[in-house]
Amino acid sequence: MPKVSETDLSERRTDILRSARTCFVTHGYDGATVSRLEKETGKSRGAIFHHFRNKETLFREVAHRDMVRMTDLAGSRGMIGLIRHLLEDPELAEWWGLRVEITRRIRHDDQLREVWEQDQNALRAAVTERLEEQRQSGRLRTDISTATTLQLLELVLEGVMAHLVSDRESGLLPEALDIVEQSLRSTENRD
Amino acid sequence: MPKVSETDLSERRTDILRSARTCFVTHGYDGATVSRLEKETGKSRGAIFHHFRNKETLFREVAHRDMVRMTDLAGSRGMIGLIRHLLEDPELAEWWGLRVEITRRIRHDDQLREVWEQDQNALRAAVTERLEEQRQSGRLRTDISTATTLQLLELVLEGVMAHLVSDRESGLLPEALDIVEQSLRSTENRD
Repeated sequence: MPKVSETDLSERRTDILRSARTCFVTHGYDGATVSRLEKETGKSRGAIFHHFRNKETLFREVAHRDMVRMTDLAGSRGMIGLIRHLLEDPELAEWWGLRVEITRRIRHDDQLREVWEQDQNALRAAVTERLEEQRQSGRLRTDISTATTLQLLELVLEGVMAHLVSDRESGLLPEALDIVEQSLRSTENRD
Repeated sequence: MPKVSETDLSERRTDILRSARTCFVTHGYDGATVSRLEKETGKSRGAIFHHFRNKETLFREVAHRDMVRMTDLAGSRGMIGLIRHLLEDPELAEWWGLRVEITRRIRHDDQLREVWEQDQNALRAAVTERLEEQRQSGRLRTDISTATTLQLLELVLEGVMAHLVSDRESGLLPEALDIVEQSLRSTENRD
């Protein structure tokens, strides 16, 4: 049997994670049975669980991968930038479905809770860093704390995700985000 | 058998709805089995389904009752008032758990979708009416449309509900709400 390269292995893992994500989003954690996971990934259970120890591990990796992508985006574009990106990325927009499962499962899965808290802290750290920079450069108002600003941005992120999952019109979301953005600017930087 | 008064009947219905709500929030729709519903309500399946035709109907009534309470609050206190109230009412704060189930189930239950859309429209109508009044009285800025203002407030409502379910600190939420409130005021009414 030919040796499988590291790159191939990593690609296979990514393929499985991507399809498993769809399966978890569509059916929920409990509904994502092994046979559904096989069908969605096009891989046998043997192949899937060669890469991931079990379903819990697979789910944790799926959740972690999304959070890493969000943190990368927040680091480069800021939280409002991340949110605007969500409006255009149907895949990330589905994230709410996972978020719901995570919220349920962290009550019973301590390892998931740990990963989830670390990932949330990483996202917060990335956003906080950008906020601090923008405060120092005078773009953002400083009469409210960075922590409060972060709290507001987190609310808006969660609100947008919940909104996107409901198949509702999102036509006014960009304008609503403009108001939030404007409300955080320093006086001299407001329109 | 003595005749049961209308008031007694209505109280029994309300008791069942309240306990069934806890059951749906805790276990999700599928997890809220008939035996769990019996245990939580302290009533036999016969008694439960005497008042509500079946589990679907029971769930619809539970969801509808919450939306009516939210709409009442929004009508009397406005959306930010409703959100501030959520922070102090642990029962309503759990609403997100239902919201998640509703989002899932409206894909398969047309009657639920109909009730849910009507209830959402009622909530929006109550909030819009208050916004219009406050615009006319000069308290709110008028350089953004009422629809956009409503959109922003809905985002914040959903964000707060998602936040409350995560057992996270909510210490900064009131300040974050202050920023939103301030951002919607007319210039002469800002702090």
